[in-house]
Amino acid sequence: MGRRGLADKGDSTRGRILDEAVRIASRDGLGGLSIGVLAAALDMSKSGLFAHFGSKEALQIATLEHAAARVRERTAPGAQLPPGPERVRFLFRAIQGWIDDPGLPGGCPITGACIEFDDRDGPVREALTGLQRRSTERSMALFAEFADPGQDLEQLAFEFRAICLAYHHAARMLREPRAGDWARNALESLIEKARRPTAGA
Amino acid sequence: MGRRGLADKGDSTRGRILDEAVRIASRDGLGGLSIGVLAAALDMSKSGLFAHFGSKEALQIATLEHAAARVRERTAPGAQLPPGPERVRFLFRAIQGWIDDPGLPGGCPITGACIEFDDRDGPVREALTGLQRRSTERSMALFAEFADPGQDLEQLAFEFRAICLAYHHAARMLREPRAGDWARNALESLIEKARRPTAGA
Repeated sequence: MGRRGLADKGDSTRGRILDEAVRIASRDGLGGLSIGVLAAALDMSKSGLFAHFGSKEALQIATLEHAAARVRERTAPGAQLPPGPERVRFLFRAIQGWIDDPGLPGGCPITGACIEFDDRDGPVREALTGLQRRSTERSMALFAEFADPGQDLEQLAFEFRAICLAYHHAARMLREPRAGDWARNALESLIEKARRPTAGA
Repeated sequence: MGRRGLADKGDSTRGRILDEAVRIASRDGLGGLSIGVLAAALDMSKSGLFAHFGSKEALQIATLEHAAARVRERTAPGAQLPPGPERVRFLFRAIQGWIDDPGLPGGCPITGACIEFDDRDGPVREALTGLQRRSTERSMALFAEFADPGQDLEQLAFEFRAICLAYHHAARMLREPRAGDWARNALESLIEKARRPTAGA
């Protein structure tokens, strides 16, 4: 099955292949995902997958982008809410649902890859920084809807990411039943801070 | 060189061996650290290291404990400061120095292992949760020195860890020059929140 063959089977086949790749990257780390490992998991030919993805790195990047698309599917409905803090709360709940997804045996593969690839220059790292930049921009845009004009949106986005990372740690590593409460309380403090009038305004 | 032989060489030899193990775990992940890899990096015999550590898992646990001891060397001088928020600031700066350490090519090996082993039950995971619990207890004790009595210390410790994780991400993954400023600003907000009188007090 060459590039054309796989494309002919439509997006759903590609989606199913990449869902499995996301699962493997969650369990074993993105470095543990190769065309051979994926072919074995799917009982497909290695040459077919190789013809489609071209290289291990291209497969890793496609997997990250697929994971990011899955996150966006969860976060996108927040745009139906009126502008304001409820959209930030929705965004957090959507990310929380992704982190808790039982289909991700080892947690968010993007978060894992950030630890794995932070010191490895190359196209995978570049793809990751691009994904992180876009997620920062999305949370900045949501805070901009209700934050005091003197607030630093990048600062708020940093603190929003902090809550997501700490939730991942508390829920996945510590298996702490209060992880969700702690994250929600931290988010309410952050929303309150965002609204607070600043001297610089 | 058996267990006795290595012990005879004193703590400094063991320390140098484990410093190299910490470096490898930082670069390749804790899963990438084995007795064979470490023996090759140190140009030592595999059988000597095996006799000393006994198993890959025991080596991984000794490496995590050694990394935690290195962190404590950095954080311990904070006890010389008078009780209060300056100790929390010192703790953060000490952790920041560790995260930025050029001897750690891929960032903090404990943070990396938390992502790698969160789904792998066994002694390595247990050692990790023990280390995380102790670090939570230490930051809770520091916040207890100045927080309003109605504040939830576990909540504050969660938010303190959030800042450390987000600093690691922004400095190591995003290579963001403002990472330190963002983390310091977030920490000041957290200190302010800790001091704020609560309805529950």
